[in-house]
Amino acid sequence: MKKFINDPNSVVDESVKGYLAAYTEYVKKLEGVRVLIRKKDPSFNKVAVITGGGSGHKPAFIGYIGEGLCDGAAVGEIFSAPPADWIYKATKELDMGKGVIYLYGNFSGDIMNFRMAKTLAEADGIKVEEVIANDDVASAPKENIKNRRAIAGEVMMWKVGGAAAWSGMNLSQVKEVSEQAVYNTRTMGVGSYPPVIPATGKPGFNLEEDEIEIGVGHHGEPGIRKEKIKSADKITTELMDAILDDLPFKSGDRVSILINGLGATPLQELYIVNRKISEILNNYKIKKVITYVGEYFTSLEMAGFSITLTKLNDSLEKLILAKADAPLFKQFDLT
Amino acid sequence: MKKFINDPNSVVDESVKGYLAAYTEYVKKLEGVRVLIRKKDPSFNKVAVITGGGSGHKPAFIGYIGEGLCDGAAVGEIFSAPPADWIYKATKELDMGKGVIYLYGNFSGDIMNFRMAKTLAEADGIKVEEVIANDDVASAPKENIKNRRAIAGEVMMWKVGGAAAWSGMNLSQVKEVSEQAVYNTRTMGVGSYPPVIPATGKPGFNLEEDEIEIGVGHHGEPGIRKEKIKSADKITTELMDAILDDLPFKSGDRVSILINGLGATPLQELYIVNRKISEILNNYKIKKVITYVGEYFTSLEMAGFSITLTKLNDSLEKLILAKADAPLFKQFDLT
Repeated sequence: MKKFINDPNSVVDESVKGYLAAYTEYVKKLEGVRVLIRKKDPSFNKVAVITGGGSGHKPAFIGYIGEGLCDGAAVGEIFSAPPADWIYKATKELDMGKGVIYLYGNFSGDIMNFRMAKTLAEADGIKVEEVIANDDVASAPKENIKNRRAIAGEVMMWKVGGAAAWSGMNLSQVKEVSEQAVYNTRTMGVGSYPPVIPATGKPGFNLEEDEIEIGVGHHGEPGIRKEKIKSADKITTELMDAILDDLPFKSGDRVSILINGLGATPLQELYIVNRKISEILNNYKIKKVITYVGEYFTSLEMAGFSITLTKLNDSLEKLILAKADAPLFKQFDLT
Repeated sequence: MKKFINDPNSVVDESVKGYLAAYTEYVKKLEGVRVLIRKKDPSFNKVAVITGGGSGHKPAFIGYIGEGLCDGAAVGEIFSAPPADWIYKATKELDMGKGVIYLYGNFSGDIMNFRMAKTLAEADGIKVEEVIANDDVASAPKENIKNRRAIAGEVMMWKVGGAAAWSGMNLSQVKEVSEQAVYNTRTMGVGSYPPVIPATGKPGFNLEEDEIEIGVGHHGEPGIRKEKIKSADKITTELMDAILDDLPFKSGDRVSILINGLGATPLQELYIVNRKISEILNNYKIKKVITYVGEYFTSLEMAGFSITLTKLNDSLEKLILAKADAPLFKQFDLT
C-alpha cells in the first residue's frame, strides 16, 4: 500500500482538518463531533438540509455543503455510518425553525443512526423529515426497490433538495421534490480495480487482471456479474440498457446525466463513455438537459465509473439548473 | 490493462467527441483539426488566449476553455504536442483584432509547434505573443530555470492570463501578468504509481512496491530521486522545503496554493497534505489567499500529487480571484 497518509487511524480526522483549512470561508466544524456545517447567513431562514455517511467518497459528503446544496454533513469513518448523536447535534445546530430534512443513502447503519437522531430531535420539538436515495439498479430487482443501495444518484437528490430548500420551499415541499428526484433516478456502475482500505492496507474486493464487475457498489459490494473487460461502447450499452429499462425512460423524456468516476479512472475514459451515451439517447429520442462528468462520489482509488440518469419534470429541471456554490460543486445559475 | 476505451488509437478523438457532447453550450470544434474553441460572444473583443499540448492531462487543456480562462486549445495525441497548423488555425479563428497570446508549457515539441504557428500567423498580420510555464522545481536547477518543465503551475498561468484578457487588458499587459504568474509560481510533484499509456498498454515508468519518485514530471519523467514511501507529513515537508527555498517565498508573502492530484490518488489524501501545508505556511507566516485542491492537471491514472505555490502581488491576486466559467473550472467572483 502506497498512500499519502500518516496514521491509518487518523486518515479521516486529518483529511477533515485539511479540508477545513482549504475552505474556511465555506464551512466550519462543530466542537467535539465530526460534523461540518455551512457558515450560515444568520438572517436567512430556510429548511435545513443534512446529509452524512461514511468517508472515502469525496467530494461526498462534505464537498456538497454550501449555497443551494446541504447545510451540514456528519462524517463517519471510512465506509462507516456516522454516530446518531453527531447527526442529532447537527440537527440542533442547523435547524432555523423551518424544520430539517435528512437526505442520505440506503445503508442499514446510516438508516439506524439517522432515525435515532430524528427521534432525539423530535423530542426537542424539531420537525425532521428524511428521504433515502436508492438509485442502484444492480443492487435489487425493481419489485424490491426499497432494498436498493444508493450510489452516485444521491448527488442528484442533494442538488434537488438543496436547491428546493434554498428557494424557500417548506419542509413538506422539499421532501416531495427530493422524493421525486429519488423516484426518477437510476444508476448502474462498473468496477475494474478495487479501492485499498487504509486501516487494512488490503484491496476491498478481488478481480482477475481481465475482469470487471458490472453493478459494483461504491464500497465494492458485489454487482450482478463479473465479466471479461470489453469495449467501452459495449459496457456503456449494457449499463444504459439496464438503466433505461428500469424506470423505464421513454422517447420524449428529458434527463440529466451524471457520469461519475469512482476514483482512479481517467476523465478521458468518462468522456468516451459519454460519447456512447449521447448516441444511445439520440436513438431513443431522449433529450439531455445537462451532463455532469467527473468525480462526484468516489470510492477511494477504485477504478470504474457509474452512469446516472434522472428523468426531469419542470420542477426537477429548474432545481437541477439552479445555482450551487459549495467547495466541491460549483454551478452558475443555468435556469 | 483494463481501460474503458474502444480502440487505443481513437482514444483522443472519442474522448473529445464525448467532451463536446457534454458541453455544447461552452465549446465547439473547428472543422478538420482537433482544436476546441470557446463559443464566442461575437460582440466581445479581447485578446485571445490559446493553449494546447498533449492529451491525457484532463481537465487540461480543454477543460479550461471559457469565460475568464482560455479561448481555445489545440489537442495533441496522448502526451504529444499538437501540430503547428492546428495552432495556426486556432489563431486565425480566435483573433478578434486585439492579438493572440499562447500560454503553454515548456516542452520541446510544444515550443516548436507553437512558434511555427506564431510565424505563420504573424505573416498574416496577427500579433502573437507567448508565455511558457516552467514551474517544476525538480526538473532543473534554478540557474537553468528556462530548462524547467511545466507541471500543474500552468493552471495558475491560465487563470491569470485568462482573467487579464477577459478584463480588457491589451496584449502586452496580458503578457506581462502571465509572465509574472510564471515567475512567481513553483511546483514540486511526487509519483507513487505510473500511468498506463493506452497505445502500448504499458506503465509509463517503474517503481518498486514501496517506492515513490520525488519530483516526477506529468508524463512520468524522472524526478530528483526515488525514495521509500514515508508519512504524508514528511513527504509534504520535503516538497514544501524545495518550493519555499527556490523562489524563495518569505515571511509576509501572500500565496495561492494548488494541490493537484495526478489521477488515482484519493482527494482525502490531498486534504491530509493540505493540513500539513497550512501548518508549514503558518510557521513561515506566509498568508494563503486561496487554496485549490483536486485534479487540475492529471497524468492519466498516475498516482501522486503536486504542490504549487504562487506568490501574489495585488494584480495577480485580483486576477486569480476573478470569476471563471469553463466546463471544468468554475469559480464565482471572489474579488
